[in-house]
Amino acid sequence: MKNASVITVGNEILKGRTVNTNAAFIGNFLTYHGYQVRRGFVVMDDLDEIGWAFRVALEVSDLVVSSGGLGPTFDDMTVEGFAKCIGQDLRIDEDALAMIKKKYGQADLTPQRLKMAKIPPSCRPIENPVGTAPGLICAVGGKKVIILPGVPKEMEALLKAMEKDIIIPDTHYYDDSVIIADVMESAFAPYVDRIMKEFDGIYVKSHPRNVEVKNPELEIEISGFGEDEAALRKKIEDAIARAGEYAVKLGGSVKR
Amino acid sequence: MKNASVITVGNEILKGRTVNTNAAFIGNFLTYHGYQVRRGFVVMDDLDEIGWAFRVALEVSDLVVSSGGLGPTFDDMTVEGFAKCIGQDLRIDEDALAMIKKKYGQADLTPQRLKMAKIPPSCRPIENPVGTAPGLICAVGGKKVIILPGVPKEMEALLKAMEKDIIIPDTHYYDDSVIIADVMESAFAPYVDRIMKEFDGIYVKSHPRNVEVKNPELEIEISGFGEDEAALRKKIEDAIARAGEYAVKLGGSVKR
Repeated sequence: MKNASVITVGNEILKGRTVNTNAAFIGNFLTYHGYQVRRGFVVMDDLDEIGWAFRVALEVSDLVVSSGGLGPTFDDMTVEGFAKCIGQDLRIDEDALAMIKKKYGQADLTPQRLKMAKIPPSCRPIENPVGTAPGLICAVGGKKVIILPGVPKEMEALLKAMEKDIIIPDTHYYDDSVIIADVMESAFAPYVDRIMKEFDGIYVKSHPRNVEVKNPELEIEISGFGEDEAALRKKIEDAIARAGEYAVKLGGSVKR
Repeated sequence: MKNASVITVGNEILKGRTVNTNAAFIGNFLTYHGYQVRRGFVVMDDLDEIGWAFRVALEVSDLVVSSGGLGPTFDDMTVEGFAKCIGQDLRIDEDALAMIKKKYGQADLTPQRLKMAKIPPSCRPIENPVGTAPGLICAVGGKKVIILPGVPKEMEALLKAMEKDIIIPDTHYYDDSVIIADVMESAFAPYVDRIMKEFDGIYVKSHPRNVEVKNPELEIEISGFGEDEAALRKKIEDAIARAGEYAVKLGGSVKR
C-alpha cells in the first residue's frame, strides 16, 4: 500500500481565516487514486517550516502533495523551501518561462513574475490551465513530490491534469455508510471491532451525529482498498448490511 | 510571542471525507486569544502517529490543542497516544468518572464508557457541556496541552469553557482587509514588501480572487499583534489605507 502526505502552506489556514478545503480535496483525490493518506501538515509561509514539512513528509510517504505558496509575492516560498529541503538551487526552467511569458503576453517580466519560472532541476513544470504559476512534479529518490498553487480552482485543475502521474493501477478504494438510530456509540463500539474481524482488510468507523445519551444517531462508515473492484464493493456492502443487523439487535433502527 | 500548534486526529480528515473545520475554529480562537499558530498536524487514528504529533508539536509550541479521537470506540486513542508521548500511564480519574456516570445515569458502565474516565495524572478533566467525553487540560513541563473531542459542537463548547486557561492577557490580535481591482498580484507584490517596511510589526498578505491576467482582483489582508488594542487597530487601518493608495497609483481601484 502506497502512502501519501498532504502539505498546506499558508498563515491564513493556521489562523483559521481560510478553512483547509484544499487538503480535503487532495486527500480525497489521492485516496480514490489508491493511496493511504498518512499525514497532513499545515505550515507558515516560512522557508524553514516549509522545508521541515517536506523533509518529514518524505520520510513517511511515497507521494507528497503541497498546495499554497506558489505565486509572485515575497511570502510565496514553497518552491524555495522545497529546493532547500532537497539541497538543490533554483534555476530558470525554459519550459516554465515559456508558460509564464504566454500568460503575461506583452507585460513586463518583473522579478516577481520571473520567480515563478525558477524551479529545482528535479522538477518539471505543468502548465496551469486556470492561473499563472505552473504546478511542479518532482522526483526525489524514487518518491514523488507535487507542488500546487493555493487558489482552489487552479489547484484542482492542475491535480486533474497530473492524474496519470498519480494514479496507482489496480488499487481501488471504496466506502459506504449507514445511519443507525437509537444506539449509543458506546453501545455499538464492540460491534465496530467485531465487523472489522469478520471482514478482512476493511476499516469501520462510527461518527456520532447527535448527542450520545439522548436521541443518539450514528453514521457507520466502512471502507477499504482492493485490487478487484467488484469484490471490494461486495465486501463493503456486506459489512454495511451486517452493521445494520447489529444495530437492530441492539434495539436500534437503520435510517438509510 | 507565544506559539501554538493544532492537532486533528482522524482518518476521515486525511481522506477528505470531512473538511477540517475544527482546525480552523481552534486556530482562529487561539489567534484571537494571543497566540501565533505555528503548525497544524493531521494524523491517523493510530497510537504512534498521535504520539508523534504531540511530541513534535510540543517541541515548537507553548500550547498544543488537539481535537478528535476522544470517544468510546477502539479507534478513539488520542488520550492513550498522548500519555505514551509523555511517558505516563492512564488511570481512572475520580472527577472524570463522576462526569461519565452523570451522563449515562442508570446505563451500564461498559469498558468503552469507562475508557473515557482513564486519563494521565498530568491532566484534569473538564466537563463536556454537550456530549459525554470530558475535555482535558494537561501540564507538560511548563507547556500546556488541551485535548478536545472531534464533534464540532462539543469541541467548541469545551474550548469556550477553557477560555480562562488559554487567554494571554495584554496580547491582542487585529486584522482587516481591502479588496482592490484591476491590479495584478505580481504588480502589487513590491508594495506588499513596502507596506510591511513602513508599518512595524504588521503582516501583509495578498489573496488573488480572480484570474491574474484578466480582470484581476486582490484581497489585501493586513494583521498584527499588539499590547495596546487601540494603537494596534489604528496601525492596521492606516496600513489598509496605504494599500488602497498604492492600488490607485498602479491604476487600480478600491472596491471596499
